[in-house]
Amino acid sequence: MIDPELLRLLRWRRDVRQFAVTPLAPAVLDALIAAADLAPSVGLSQPWRFVLVDDSERRAGVKAVFERCNREALACQDGDRAATYAGLKLAGLDQAPCHLVVFVDDDPVQGHGLGRRTMPETPAYSTVMAIHTLWLAARSLGVGVGWVSILDPPAVTAILDVPSSWRLIAYLCLGYPDRESDVPELERAGWERRRPTRLVRR
Amino acid sequence: MIDPELLRLLRWRRDVRQFAVTPLAPAVLDALIAAADLAPSVGLSQPWRFVLVDDSERRAGVKAVFERCNREALACQDGDRAATYAGLKLAGLDQAPCHLVVFVDDDPVQGHGLGRRTMPETPAYSTVMAIHTLWLAARSLGVGVGWVSILDPPAVTAILDVPSSWRLIAYLCLGYPDRESDVPELERAGWERRRPTRLVRR
Repeated sequence: MIDPELLRLLRWRRDVRQFAVTPLAPAVLDALIAAADLAPSVGLSQPWRFVLVDDSERRAGVKAVFERCNREALACQDGDRAATYAGLKLAGLDQAPCHLVVFVDDDPVQGHGLGRRTMPETPAYSTVMAIHTLWLAARSLGVGVGWVSILDPPAVTAILDVPSSWRLIAYLCLGYPDRESDVPELERAGWERRRPTRLVRR
Repeated sequence: MIDPELLRLLRWRRDVRQFAVTPLAPAVLDALIAAADLAPSVGLSQPWRFVLVDDSERRAGVKAVFERCNREALACQDGDRAATYAGLKLAGLDQAPCHLVVFVDDDPVQGHGLGRRTMPETPAYSTVMAIHTLWLAARSLGVGVGWVSILDPPAVTAILDVPSSWRLIAYLCLGYPDRESDVPELERAGWERRRPTRLVRR
């Protein structure tokens, strides 16, 4: 059946939001980007664009955007849910040694347009598969990844000053986890639990 | 560094378009769906919906949609590119023993809306990660996966008669490959080649 090591990796992957201060060696990041390049892409277009954010002013700007968006999201939750929401740790922006932002070029030259005429969203999907590839590769090295989606993409894009054809897909925090678990953090916090998917037949 | 077995799997994954007639055992498909359920999802919402298409009339309808879209795409390529395009095998719809269609529920109840207020596209991205998880799990079993994106999503959705809140993300062909290669088919055909990604710093 499915390779047990792969299953173990899939189970143990986690969205990590608690990081140790240990930095990532540059060679580790290079290896992760090289692994991401092996992801499937529509027309072999490799439309993913990776931006490493080290500048402390830009990082502070992104954190302010997260805090605003998170306050607004909290205001949309009601009653008991709001209390639970307020207690969740939803980003590791402060501690994560590495901030990696992933953009898509929705109209890349590479690939010559193949496979995306009727589904223009496929470059974004390719980019998501590159992110997931990087995520699994990171875990195999003991590096944790947290995907922060409680952000205002145009605001973050403006802070990062990237080409206007790039569209933000994911803001990732990378670093070594300060603890390991194979139970999703949202499940431990009582927010939600995994359920088995039902296959529909047609 | 990165687990060599994982790297081997990532290199060897491929988008498969040439299938042997050997059917997939139901237990194999169940194992793949269970693996996909381990994918990351926004707010632990598991917004992916899997539809297995066995009905021959529905399959024929989908094939007709592919052929129309592929003719239109060919007409958009010019000169030498058009000749190369016409020679590409872009779908394994005829041979693949298993047609698995993946939809997203963009507004799932599960997850209680967490993480998708400012980025409503995140359920679709979660679904893409489930597809990629299934893809890697399939390869570890020797099963090939081909993603057909040369389709008209509303036309295929109508053929499959699914709930109106489901949006098509991917039409997948699954089966045992009739040959193995770690070079992308589009590279072998001279359409495009892989290039290393450059990391941008900010």
